[in-house]
Amino acid sequence: VDHSKFYARARTLLVGAIATAAVVVAADQAFAQGPKMTPGERAVKYRQAVYTVLAGNFGPVNAMATGKAPMNAAELTKRSERVAQIAKFLDEAFPPESNGVGNTDAKPEIWTNNAEFQKQLTALVEKSDALAAAAKTGDAAKIKSAAEETAGTCKSCHEKFMKD
Amino acid sequence: VDHSKFYARARTLLVGAIATAAVVVAADQAFAQGPKMTPGERAVKYRQAVYTVLAGNFGPVNAMATGKAPMNAAELTKRSERVAQIAKFLDEAFPPESNGVGNTDAKPEIWTNNAEFQKQLTALVEKSDALAAAAKTGDAAKIKSAAEETAGTCKSCHEKFMKD
Repeated sequence: VDHSKFYARARTLLVGAIATAAVVVAADQAFAQGPKMTPGERAVKYRQAVYTVLAGNFGPVNAMATGKAPMNAAELTKRSERVAQIAKFLDEAFPPESNGVGNTDAKPEIWTNNAEFQKQLTALVEKSDALAAAAKTGDAAKIKSAAEETAGTCKSCHEKFMKD
Repeated sequence: VDHSKFYARARTLLVGAIATAAVVVAADQAFAQGPKMTPGERAVKYRQAVYTVLAGNFGPVNAMATGKAPMNAAELTKRSERVAQIAKFLDEAFPPESNGVGNTDAKPEIWTNNAEFQKQLTALVEKSDALAAAAKTGDAAKIKSAAEETAGTCKSCHEKFMKD
């Protein structure tokens, strides 16, 4: 088995992670808001905010898609696109230094079984892109199905990687 | 003076706001996370999360653009685009029922002088769009200038509409 591609990819990721960390640490000084936090604490706060924004948009989408709230096509499209946008922000929301930091529900398995976790994040991104596309069709059955599949990726990931 | 356009626009906004409120209230039941919150409390939590995500991306951008962190073109482009995306989420982050609710730094002037506040939000959206465009050019002077103008819209709005 040739692992060279794997190592090249790992190297690329590592270089990217180090560059990101350097930038984020420098930004700590440059644009600090509120009390001084460690990079890990900052990452926890950041990702919890990403999830709050995600849920704040997916909640209404899911309610409309499953008939629990009256359908509003413009709202559905706008919020579905926002779900798809913000879901992608999770790609850098779990740096290793945020493992076990502060008031987090993130299980250590996120880092010890990171390949599986990345699969879950990819599924969310793909399903929410599909949901945004479905919203534009106006087809109620497609929208409901796409919303259920998106919600399924949330549930699946929470069961594996989120504390009760 | 013919105010008909103004009234038509106000009516459109009002209808949109009522529709949004209905959907958000319904979503409260459908996709509640954590402790039960009032719509006002939920809006405060949502907008604080939007600002956390905004600052979490703009911080590194600003640090790179002003020479306080090493430039990383890929990071700059990615994060500038995220700033431009998330800035647009503020459009519905200040519903009237969130005025004075909970641990908020939002001044009542946001609602009593809403036209001016909307101008400030529009400036942020425009300047962050321009910043994302500048990032793609790779022109250091343009990037610095665009970052400063974006930071300027933050500062201007905070001075007018955010408690000390």
